[in-house]
Amino acid sequence: MHPRLTLALTLIEAVAILAYAISGFIEARKRRLDAVGTFLVGFATAFGGGTVRDVLLEHRPFYWVEHQTYVIVLFVASLFAPFVLRTLSRLFSERALLVADAIGLGLFSISGTSIALEAGMPAFTATLMGVATGVFGGLIRDVLCNVVPLILRDSRPYATCAFAGCWLYLLLDHFDVDSVYSLIIATAFILIARLVTFKLNVRLPH
Amino acid sequence: MHPRLTLALTLIEAVAILAYAISGFIEARKRRLDAVGTFLVGFATAFGGGTVRDVLLEHRPFYWVEHQTYVIVLFVASLFAPFVLRTLSRLFSERALLVADAIGLGLFSISGTSIALEAGMPAFTATLMGVATGVFGGLIRDVLCNVVPLILRDSRPYATCAFAGCWLYLLLDHFDVDSVYSLIIATAFILIARLVTFKLNVRLPH
Amino acid sequence: MHPRLTLALTLIEAVAILAYAISGFIEARKRRLDAVGTFLVGFATAFGGGTVRDVLLEHRPFYWVEHQTYVIVLFVASLFAPFVLRTLSRLFSERALLVADAIGLGLFSISGTSIALEAGMPAFTATLMGVATGVFGGLIRDVLCNVVPLILRDSRPYATCAFAGCWLYLLLDHFDVDSVYSLIIATAFILIARLVTFKLNVRLPH
Repeated sequence: MHPRLTLALTLIEAVAILAYAISGFIEARKRRLDAVGTFLVGFATAFGGGTVRDVLLEHRPFYWVEHQTYVIVLFVASLFAPFVLRTLSRLFSERALLVADAIGLGLFSISGTSIALEAGMPAFTATLMGVATGVFGGLIRDVLCNVVPLILRDSRPYATCAFAGCWLYLLLDHFDVDSVYSLIIATAFILIARLVTFKLNVRLPH
Repeated sequence: MHPRLTLALTLIEAVAILAYAISGFIEARKRRLDAVGTFLVGFATAFGGGTVRDVLLEHRPFYWVEHQTYVIVLFVASLFAPFVLRTLSRLFSERALLVADAIGLGLFSISGTSIALEAGMPAFTATLMGVATGVFGGLIRDVLCNVVPLILRDSRPYATCAFAGCWLYLLLDHFDVDSVYSLIIATAFILIARLVTFKLNVRLPH
Repeated sequence: MHPRLTLALTLIEAVAILAYAISGFIEARKRRLDAVGTFLVGFATAFGGGTVRDVLLEHRPFYWVEHQTYVIVLFVASLFAPFVLRTLSRLFSERALLVADAIGLGLFSISGTSIALEAGMPAFTATLMGVATGVFGGLIRDVLCNVVPLILRDSRPYATCAFAGCWLYLLLDHFDVDSVYSLIIATAFILIARLVTFKLNVRLPH
């Protein structure tokens, strides 16, 4: 892979992980959790989806064990969560957070699908595991905060966008598109699908 | 095994899985979840118990990976959940659902015990894993729907019937009864125990 | 190891496991769970942390599979939970329960860290897995009882004491202190840190 592409992917990944962790921090502050709760909910939101997938696939090491730096950054950030969140809300609009979260949804779902395929899962199961990678972090966050998970009741397409993107990835894979390009195309598809359906206020059947 | 017996067992299994999934669908509708939530809660109710057991035992592949058809059927059904549930409630009485659920409890608990024994678990642990196979689906359903799990507070014998049936299975196994027959006898025992205690309104100490 | 030391450690372990199980029983009674719920919540509180750690590390057999006697004792105790809890509250003060729970926190966290290190985890991850061993039992207890987990919102240092003790253990390990002694010293540190911060009403930033 071209080194600039590698750098770009690493940056996108960092944005995605931090966006998920921040959504955990925000929920933790809303529920008045302490520093321990803020860290744990942020961590679970960022890495919960991938961890569940890896447990199901018996895949090791976990991403967060191989990339401990992210965990240490989250740990430090959670100690100063009120300050971190205040600063972020001054620097970035809510829209920026929405975009960052949609990048995370895309990247995690597609990389999850790819890992499940490599582990020999059949196509339909691989897409389910991809979507689970993208959405189970938020699901665990909400279970820990004792609310019905947003992903189960928010009728705006979220898991649905991820699911469509995972099938697009399978299709590109089927036509032997280079895996880096299919990753980028399918992730971009999920990002755009999420933003467009959100903007147009599309709703799932309820 | 006689082909008719195989067919009968496959049919019983399908009834059991669908009964569990429907109990997930019903709970999901009650909590006003969307199509994603309906699918996920139905899936978790039907396959959650076996998945937890397999994770604990490091047993793969999961049942639902080997039998993807069930997952696809649940997926399609969850898209039309209101219609599916309306049709079912017209075709079957509440009593039929209770019987189907009790068949599931019996079949999942006994097959769970048998898988745990094969994995080398000691007797008491094997029965616990059997009961977990039968009841953890409903437990996950209730955690996702943000209510105290029914299995923990409903004082009517449910896990208790399963537990007794698992020990009956161990006993039959000890006396070298053919495993298909012990499976059928112990499953039937759980089914009958559940229906009789339900009818007689037996209660556990509270 | 000196046989008296082995006996002492076994006794400490029994105290720790029972203290955790009792905290599960108490919460279960408070939520008016039945005998099944009391057993399951007690079991999850006592063994949940170690089980999650072992699943993450692919470490088998589980402690409770190797030491079935504990599970059987919990099973019987849960059948007579009202009587058991009444008797315990007559024999022991609330302070005694607090001390027993703090012993559990220390012992589980340090032994969890040690098992994670043996499994090849890097230092920071090992301490996280140690703390998880100590606190995830209570977290699962609270999720099952449908409340926001105490560990996430109680601003009194609990996980924090465990975390500090795990790093003390790593430090002692680094200086080649015999592992039994580092276990005892670090566990004692957590016990004392928990009791002192509780007594002085120390609070984490909120």
